[in-house]
Amino acid sequence: MVRIAVIGCGRIGRMHVANVRAHPRATLAAVYDVDARAAAEAAAAGDAPAAGSVDEILGSGAVDAVLVASATPTHADLIERAVAAGKAVLCEKPIDLDLARVERCRAVIAGATVPVQIGFNRRFDPGHAAARAAVAAGEIGALHQVIITSRDPEMPPRSYYEVAGGLMRDMTIHDFDLARFMLGDEPVEVFAVGGRLIDPAMMGDLGDHDTVMVVMRTADGKQCHINNSRTAVYGYDQRVELLGTRGMVQSGNRRAHEMRRFGADRTGAGEPYLFFFIERYVEAFRAELDAFVDCVAAGAPPPVGFEDGRRALILAEAAYRSLAERRLVRVDEIG
Amino acid sequence: MVRIAVIGCGRIGRMHVANVRAHPRATLAAVYDVDARAAAEAAAAGDAPAAGSVDEILGSGAVDAVLVASATPTHADLIERAVAAGKAVLCEKPIDLDLARVERCRAVIAGATVPVQIGFNRRFDPGHAAARAAVAAGEIGALHQVIITSRDPEMPPRSYYEVAGGLMRDMTIHDFDLARFMLGDEPVEVFAVGGRLIDPAMMGDLGDHDTVMVVMRTADGKQCHINNSRTAVYGYDQRVELLGTRGMVQSGNRRAHEMRRFGADRTGAGEPYLFFFIERYVEAFRAELDAFVDCVAAGAPPPVGFEDGRRALILAEAAYRSLAERRLVRVDEIG
Amino acid sequence: MVRIAVIGCGRIGRMHVANVRAHPRATLAAVYDVDARAAAEAAAAGDAPAAGSVDEILGSGAVDAVLVASATPTHADLIERAVAAGKAVLCEKPIDLDLARVERCRAVIAGATVPVQIGFNRRFDPGHAAARAAVAAGEIGALHQVIITSRDPEMPPRSYYEVAGGLMRDMTIHDFDLARFMLGDEPVEVFAVGGRLIDPAMMGDLGDHDTVMVVMRTADGKQCHINNSRTAVYGYDQRVELLGTRGMVQSGNRRAHEMRRFGADRTGAGEPYLFFFIERYVEAFRAELDAFVDCVAAGAPPPVGFEDGRRALILAEAAYRSLAERRLVRVDEIG
Amino acid sequence: MVRIAVIGCGRIGRMHVANVRAHPRATLAAVYDVDARAAAEAAAAGDAPAAGSVDEILGSGAVDAVLVASATPTHADLIERAVAAGKAVLCEKPIDLDLARVERCRAVIAGATVPVQIGFNRRFDPGHAAARAAVAAGEIGALHQVIITSRDPEMPPRSYYEVAGGLMRDMTIHDFDLARFMLGDEPVEVFAVGGRLIDPAMMGDLGDHDTVMVVMRTADGKQCHINNSRTAVYGYDQRVELLGTRGMVQSGNRRAHEMRRFGADRTGAGEPYLFFFIERYVEAFRAELDAFVDCVAAGAPPPVGFEDGRRALILAEAAYRSLAERRLVRVDEIG
Repeated sequence: MVRIAVIGCGRIGRMHVANVRAHPRATLAAVYDVDARAAAEAAAAGDAPAAGSVDEILGSGAVDAVLVASATPTHADLIERAVAAGKAVLCEKPIDLDLARVERCRAVIAGATVPVQIGFNRRFDPGHAAARAAVAAGEIGALHQVIITSRDPEMPPRSYYEVAGGLMRDMTIHDFDLARFMLGDEPVEVFAVGGRLIDPAMMGDLGDHDTVMVVMRTADGKQCHINNSRTAVYGYDQRVELLGTRGMVQSGNRRAHEMRRFGADRTGAGEPYLFFFIERYVEAFRAELDAFVDCVAAGAPPPVGFEDGRRALILAEAAYRSLAERRLVRVDEIG
Repeated sequence: MVRIAVIGCGRIGRMHVANVRAHPRATLAAVYDVDARAAAEAAAAGDAPAAGSVDEILGSGAVDAVLVASATPTHADLIERAVAAGKAVLCEKPIDLDLARVERCRAVIAGATVPVQIGFNRRFDPGHAAARAAVAAGEIGALHQVIITSRDPEMPPRSYYEVAGGLMRDMTIHDFDLARFMLGDEPVEVFAVGGRLIDPAMMGDLGDHDTVMVVMRTADGKQCHINNSRTAVYGYDQRVELLGTRGMVQSGNRRAHEMRRFGADRTGAGEPYLFFFIERYVEAFRAELDAFVDCVAAGAPPPVGFEDGRRALILAEAAYRSLAERRLVRVDEIG
Repeated sequence: MVRIAVIGCGRIGRMHVANVRAHPRATLAAVYDVDARAAAEAAAAGDAPAAGSVDEILGSGAVDAVLVASATPTHADLIERAVAAGKAVLCEKPIDLDLARVERCRAVIAGATVPVQIGFNRRFDPGHAAARAAVAAGEIGALHQVIITSRDPEMPPRSYYEVAGGLMRDMTIHDFDLARFMLGDEPVEVFAVGGRLIDPAMMGDLGDHDTVMVVMRTADGKQCHINNSRTAVYGYDQRVELLGTRGMVQSGNRRAHEMRRFGADRTGAGEPYLFFFIERYVEAFRAELDAFVDCVAAGAPPPVGFEDGRRALILAEAAYRSLAERRLVRVDEIG
Repeated sequence: MVRIAVIGCGRIGRMHVANVRAHPRATLAAVYDVDARAAAEAAAAGDAPAAGSVDEILGSGAVDAVLVASATPTHADLIERAVAAGKAVLCEKPIDLDLARVERCRAVIAGATVPVQIGFNRRFDPGHAAARAAVAAGEIGALHQVIITSRDPEMPPRSYYEVAGGLMRDMTIHDFDLARFMLGDEPVEVFAVGGRLIDPAMMGDLGDHDTVMVVMRTADGKQCHINNSRTAVYGYDQRVELLGTRGMVQSGNRRAHEMRRFGADRTGAGEPYLFFFIERYVEAFRAELDAFVDCVAAGAPPPVGFEDGRRALILAEAAYRSLAERRLVRVDEIG
C-alpha cells in the first residue's frame, strides 16, 4: 500500500481525497489545508487525519507520497520540500506561472530519486490514451496533423483570472502538454492569436484572452493546431484528432449517458457534454493516480514528470511571444 | 435505349416520369392518366407525349416497357394486358389487395417471357442493399435475427385508408418483402398484434390498425421482427438490423444533410429524418428503375418479380389470420 | 451509515462488496460465502470481517441490511430469514426459478416492514433511467411501442445453463422487468418464439433456447418487443427504444471510451461494446445500491421490490406457455 | 428555359453537362472542347450539339449563358469574351493563378450587366449551407471560431501539380472562400505553415506543399483555422465547425449510405467517405447550377461572384507571404 497525503483540500483536492480513499493499492495517510475547516471536512470524507502542518506530513514515516493540490504559488516550494524529505510527489499543474521559478525548482530537485509526477490528467483519459496508443502502434502510419479542441463550459469569475496567470499558462498549458504527448515529439515553432470575444471589457482590463488559436510544428514538420474558448454552452468540449498517412483517430467527448432524443425538431440528440473537468475526466484522474501509485511502488520514473511541466510552460511563453510579435516563434528562443 | 411509358401520373407516377427522363439508358415514350390534365402535366414535365389510352401505349411499336403507377385496382389488369402485348412491366406494389385476384393474374401471365417487376423499392436502398450484400458475403456469419422498423411520418387522410386495404396489405407489405429479401429465405410462420393507438375512433370505424408488431420465423429458425407505426413525428423511420454469429449490420436513415447542432440542451442533434418515401428512397427508386432497364435490355428476369409480390401478400394474409385467431399461423395455411 | 452484509462472494458478490465499501453512506459490515476461501478473499478486498454463518449476520446488531448475491436456490430462503430477522434485503434476481416458491415466499414475508429490493439493475442505468424519465415527463407524448434489444456477448458454459432455469427465467427476466418499467404498466398478453440457433445440440439437449423474440401488449394496447441472443460478438448489447406520439427516445450502449477509427475500410468505428454486465452496468449497480441505501436509511419502500420480481417471473412463465402452445397467452392465465 | 453552353468537357465539364441536361429550368445549348472527341462524347451524353468554336457559342442567339469548365489559363479570357458577348458566366475556380491577371479581368468586365458566378461549389453543400444559415439566423449567437477541415483522398499525379499553381491557390482557395462565407466577414490577417510530409521529394522539387495549416482573423477578432492534407485514406474529408456564444454547429461528411458494421473489432463503423469532390459535392454542384439558372433568369447578381474569386486568391497570396516571412500577414498588404 502506498501511503499518500493530500495537501490542499479545495475542489480538486477533495476529488483526489476520494480517489485515494477508493484506490485498492493506496491509503490516505493524511490531509492538509491552510484552511483548517476545509482540512477537517476532507479528513472526514477521506476517513483520515488532518495534519497540523505540511512539515508534519513531510516528517512522517507513515507517508510515502504527497499529492499537491494547493494553490499554484505553493507548488514549486512543496515539490522542493517533498523531494528533500524523500517523498514522491504528484503535483497539480502548473509547476509555477514563472518560468524562472520553474528553472530554479528544477535545479533544486536535480538528481531526485523519488518520482515527481505533474498532474496533466488528460494523458490518462481512456479515449485520448487509446488515440495515442493507436498512433504509437502504427495504426495510422506516419503522424502528420494533430488538432486539439479544448473549450471550457463557461467563464470563471474574475477572481479566478486574477491569479490564473493568463489563458495560455492556465488553460492552453494542458493542450500544450497533450500536443507533446500526441505528437510524441517536441514542437519547435509556435504561432498564436488571442482574442477577447466573450468578455472584451474584463479581458482587456486584465490583459488576458478568452479565445485562442495556436499552430505549432515539430522539427520534422508535423503540424499541430489548438483552439481554445472560455465558453461552450453545450458543455466542456475536449477533442483530439490525429491524422496520419494510413488513417485518422479521433477522441471525443463523453456524455452522462447514451440516451438520444428524436422529435419534430431533432434526431439523435444527446445531452450536453459533461459540465467540467472533474466530470469529464473522472476516469482520467483515477488512471493518473493509478499510474502514480505504480511508480511510487516500483520506484520508477513517472509517465509525466517535471520536465513535461517545464516544457509545457515554455510553449506557453513561446505562444505569448508570438502573440506580442505577430510571428512564428522558435521554441529555443524561450528555453 | 429502353422506351418506357408511364401509366398513372399521380405523385409517384410523376416521380417515375422524372426518373425515366433522367435515365441514361431509357427514354420516356409516353405517359397516360385517366385524368387528362394530370397526363398533360406529366407529359410536359417529362417532355413526352400524353397517350390517349392504355391501348395506344400497349399497341405502340415505340414502347418497350410500361411502368404502372396507377391506382391499385388497375394493377392486375394492366399487368395482364401488358404481358399480352409483349411489354415488360414495372408495377407498383401491391399487385392487388385480393389474393384470389393475384392468383388469377399469376395464371394468366404464366409463361410470360417479358420481365414483370414489382415495385418493392426498398430492396434498392443503398444502405439496405449493402446490408443484404454483407450478409450474402458471409460478413456476419449465419444470420439469426432480422429487426425491421418502419414508421410513416404522419397519418394519411381517411380517404387514403378507405382504399388502402388495411395497414398490413398497404404498409407492412413492404416490410414483408424486405424481410424475405434480408432473410434470403421464406418465413414459414407469422404472428401479429395490431393496435389502434393513434386514431382509435377512425381505425375502429374502418376496422384498420395504426400500430403493429409482427414476429416471423423461417423453416431453419431465423427470427424476424417488424414494428410499424403510422406516425413518427421525427420523420419517416426506416431501419433494418441483421444479427449473425459473427457480427451485426444496421441500415439506418438518411437526413437531408450532415449538419449537427450543439447547444445548451442538446449535442449532436441532426435534422428530423426525411419526410416520406419519395425523399427517403430517392436513390432506391432510381436504382429500381436502373435494374428494370437492365432487365428489359437483357431480357433477363427482374430482381424482384411477380412471385415476390404474391409472397408478400400471402404474409399479410397470414398476419391478418394471426390477428384474428391470436396465434402463430403457418404460412402454408394461406397459400 | 447503513451497515450492509454481503452474502455470496462470487463474481457479482465481489462487485457488490467493492460498491458497498466505496459508498459514502454505507459500511460493509461483513461478508459470507459457503466457500470459506471466497469469503476470506472478499473480506480482505472489502476490509470487513468474514462471518462464520448466515445466522451470525442475521443475528448481529451491527447489521442493518443484507445484500444477497448467493446462488439462486438460496434467494427465497434468505429473503424470508432476513425479513424475519428485521434486516432489509437487496436480493439479486431471480427470487426463485419456481413461481410456486415465489408465491410461498410472498406469503411468508407479507406485511414485512423492512425494505425488500430485487436486483433489477437495469432500471438504474443512467441512459435507461433517463429514457423512462423522459416518457414520464411527457416528452414523447403517449407511449405506443417499446423495443428492447438484449444480447449477451458470448455463450456461458454448459454448467451455467444447467442451473439457470432456461433463458426466459434467467436472461429475458431482466427484459420483462425493464418492459414493465418502461411501459409504466402491466403487460396483459405475451407471445414468444424461441430458437436454438447458436448451439442447437446443447440447447436441444437441455431443452433450452439461445435466441428469442417476444411480443407483449398492455391492457390499453401499448406494444412491446424484446429480442434476445446468447451471443453478440461485438459486445454486450443493451438497448431500449420508446416511441410515442410526440417523439422517440433511445438508450444505447456505452463503450470503454470515445475514440473512433477512420481508415481505408471504415469511418467512425468505435470499440466493441463493453464485454458484459459488470462493465456495461457499472453505473447502474452503483445507483441501485444508492437507492437501496436511501430506502434503508429512510425506512421507505424500495423502487423495485418483491412484487416486481414476482411479476417478471410470471411474464417468463407466460412466455413459456406461449412457446409451448404457439399462441398469445393472457398473463392472468398464469398468475 | 435558360440556354447554357458548356465549355470544357473534361471530368468536371461532363458532370456539368449531365446537371444542365437534368435541370428542369435549363437546356443544354451546346458543348465545346478543344479536343473534338471529348466534345463529341459530351455532346452525345448531353443530347446537344458540339460547337465548332467558342466564337460559335458566344455569337449564337440561342445561348444565354456559358459554363466555363476548361483549363485554368483560359478562364479569364473566356470570362472577358463571354461578358463582351452579353452571355452570363458560371466559371470554375480559380479565375486565374495570377492575381495581376485577375485584376485586369476585373477591370475589363467592370460594369458588366450579366451575372458572372464563380464555381465555389462548397457554399451550396446542403450541410455547409445549413450551417451558415444557422449562424445567420442567430442560432449560435455571436460567431467566434470557424474550423475548416479539408483533405483530399489521395495525391493527384505530378502532372496535376505542375499546372495547379500550388496547394494554396488550387486547394486551400476553396477553404478561403468557405471561410469568408462562414465568417460572413473578411479575414484581415493570415498566418500559414506548409509542409512536405506526404511526398517530400516531389513537393520539394516542385516547390509545393502537401500539408498545410492556416489561421486567420477578421477585423472584429473572429478566428478561423483551416487544415489541409493531400491525402486521407478514409476518403475526401470536408468538415466545417462554427462556434458561437450560444452554441456550435458542425457540417460533416456524407457517406454512400447509412449502413454500419458491428463486429469483434468495431462497432458503428461506416463506409469510408465518398471518394472525391464529384461524389461528395453532388448535391452542391446541382444547387450551384440551380442558383446560377435563377440568377440568369432573373438578371440578378450571383450569390458568389467575381469579387469572391478575387478575394479568395488574395487570401492565398497572403498565405504564401506568411509562409515565406514566417509571420502574420495583413491582407491589405496584398490587395
